[in-house]
Amino acid sequence: METRKILLIICDGMGDRLSKGKTPLEEAEKMNMDFIAKNGICGIMDPVRQGIRPGSDTAHLSLLGYDPFKVYTGRGALEALGLGIEIAENEIALRCNFATIKNGKIIDRRAGREEYGLEEIAAQLSGMKIDGVEIELHKASGHRGVLILRGEGLSAKISDSDPEKENVPIQEVKALMPSKEAKKTAGVLNKFTRLALEILKDHKINKDRVKMGKLPANAILCRGAGTKPEIPSLEEKYGLKGICISATTLIKGVCRAAGMDTPPVEGATGHIDSNIKEKAKLALKVFDRYDLILLHIKGTDEASHDGNFDAKVKMIERIDKEVVEILLNKINLDEVTLVLTSDHSTPISIRQHSADPVPIAIIGDVRVDQVKKFTERECAKGGLNRIHGMYLMDMLLDLSNRAKLFGA
Amino acid sequence: METRKILLIICDGMGDRLSKGKTPLEEAEKMNMDFIAKNGICGIMDPVRQGIRPGSDTAHLSLLGYDPFKVYTGRGALEALGLGIEIAENEIALRCNFATIKNGKIIDRRAGREEYGLEEIAAQLSGMKIDGVEIELHKASGHRGVLILRGEGLSAKISDSDPEKENVPIQEVKALMPSKEAKKTAGVLNKFTRLALEILKDHKINKDRVKMGKLPANAILCRGAGTKPEIPSLEEKYGLKGICISATTLIKGVCRAAGMDTPPVEGATGHIDSNIKEKAKLALKVFDRYDLILLHIKGTDEASHDGNFDAKVKMIERIDKEVVEILLNKINLDEVTLVLTSDHSTPISIRQHSADPVPIAIIGDVRVDQVKKFTERECAKGGLNRIHGMYLMDMLLDLSNRAKLFGA
Repeated sequence: METRKILLIICDGMGDRLSKGKTPLEEAEKMNMDFIAKNGICGIMDPVRQGIRPGSDTAHLSLLGYDPFKVYTGRGALEALGLGIEIAENEIALRCNFATIKNGKIIDRRAGREEYGLEEIAAQLSGMKIDGVEIELHKASGHRGVLILRGEGLSAKISDSDPEKENVPIQEVKALMPSKEAKKTAGVLNKFTRLALEILKDHKINKDRVKMGKLPANAILCRGAGTKPEIPSLEEKYGLKGICISATTLIKGVCRAAGMDTPPVEGATGHIDSNIKEKAKLALKVFDRYDLILLHIKGTDEASHDGNFDAKVKMIERIDKEVVEILLNKINLDEVTLVLTSDHSTPISIRQHSADPVPIAIIGDVRVDQVKKFTERECAKGGLNRIHGMYLMDMLLDLSNRAKLFGA
Repeated sequence: METRKILLIICDGMGDRLSKGKTPLEEAEKMNMDFIAKNGICGIMDPVRQGIRPGSDTAHLSLLGYDPFKVYTGRGALEALGLGIEIAENEIALRCNFATIKNGKIIDRRAGREEYGLEEIAAQLSGMKIDGVEIELHKASGHRGVLILRGEGLSAKISDSDPEKENVPIQEVKALMPSKEAKKTAGVLNKFTRLALEILKDHKINKDRVKMGKLPANAILCRGAGTKPEIPSLEEKYGLKGICISATTLIKGVCRAAGMDTPPVEGATGHIDSNIKEKAKLALKVFDRYDLILLHIKGTDEASHDGNFDAKVKMIERIDKEVVEILLNKINLDEVTLVLTSDHSTPISIRQHSADPVPIAIIGDVRVDQVKKFTERECAKGGLNRIHGMYLMDMLLDLSNRAKLFGA
């Protein structure tokens, strides 16, 4: 039996609820996605578990076959991995935002999403020692960053300084356990937050930003403290050589933790204006060298968080033309198990991740069903019924003739 | 994001199989239930797990988010809680029936469902000490009662005296473990059963009952020995302030164990003639003060246990008019996540609980599907597909904008 390659297209936050009676997938014109639905088997999928609102990190862990309830150690460590930063056992990583504060209140959690000068700011805030702990700040994609705390006696059991809303002050970080380590780590982080405010207040970069009509990046918000996750690679677990084509640090981090290659993609930004065509081209270029190609597109989630229905529709239409069509034109469907899905739903109505299942369509040696459109509600009528994200990888190993028999 | 209130209407044992090609839900005229199906998302739900025949207690535990395989400690303790009886750790509670015995055989397990004098009988049998163990018998709703054993060295690992069928003798209670405690408890219960038979044989109440043409309540059948369940409240678990509107002691007990308020409902009896309109009125009255309102109606299950198809249809039609219509007319559907479902199926064909999944419809910020009728077979075609009862509460937290994100 020839094995098939597994091509997994994950459109971040693409699943939705109804806006004026329709989801973005129902509104979009997307004949290539519909081709997959029509010629494949469809269903809905709970990325982590029924009723669980997944993050993109826990969802991707689950879709790669790892139980996030067991292995998830927080966003920070995955972001660090995604940036190619090595962290040792017991070192702490946190996800950060470069943000804008005014009169003691956060007025933009993403500093206008403007990247100008953020590398320089990160370098400026790196290298200091607080209570013997070395501080390292790295710029990630967009307004995102990663903070690493290196030193003895640290703990990830601390709360966030990022309140995850605007028009409120930065939160005091607290120990979540009554341990010496957690108290020390919270203390270090609070001191860092205050120092950063002082240093960035009149920083040259921020003066430049304001002159340019941009918001200053004058505060660092941290969340998701974590240590490095200890998981076997996809190669060890399934014998799969995998590659992740994504511009999103967090996703690259999850994939690196799973032992996948995570090459840079030219012009891919993780925003709705990303050069996603380049991702399809890269996928085709490396196609022969990998068993599992995971192609991730962030723009759909970004449009959802902004509550922008039209932008989400347009992004879906771009993915259809610039990614799915290119791939369908070039790959041999007899040699591939192709999956189109999402890591979680991000309904426009709530602008945040939800527990609604995501649509999924699989083309290959499958029981093709009657579903003709790739939408949440049509896929719910499909032959897969409702599946569990954590078992997806097992199903794909089976459909690609790689699964081991259990029993005799 | 505004949170929504959660309104959960649970019609006990409403799910069914086919009688002459139709289920009671398919036969009933119920435009308000169908309105929920038509304007919501539908599915079928396994209250406890696929293939498990749930009791109303284990099902309600599961629907409230508690894993009954882990936390269920027997019916008795929940009945006691439902009656407002406090039981301490290591004390044993049992569910009882006031029953009718003749020539050594049980001829009616429910003493004709006649309540006359049962309070007096319960008082008569309370207060005695057997082998140093204090006996307390409380009348519950209808023919039901609760027996409490208070003392040292007791165990709930004992069999039932109630054979759960008629035309057979009362069962000898046996220790289910070779422990001293289980043997002692079984012994106490057997002595109590025999004492009760003697005391009730020629009791004045029973003479009165016979004169009135009623069956005598001359035996006490016990089952479901248990200790108090140790579970966190809904407030601790989910931050939900909950109220349970039910006339059924067992359901009130589950809800009290979960920290919910369980006020009395005027005229509500748990029978098919119950004043269920009062439940809807009470729900509306307390609506503003709670996050979760659970409205439970028992009559559908009672008709099922009696094998009475027409009575079940009529009860469904009453619920539709006297509960669902009243609620739909008054609540603002933009502020509520409304769920209509059942705790388990009780098919007319077998007159007992079955493992068949139950229909469920949810109205709110959901992916409204094409289902137009609230029936078992139509809901099975719905957008929820088949869901797990134990994850229902997580889904409702998500749909009511209360769920925490897992990951980032």
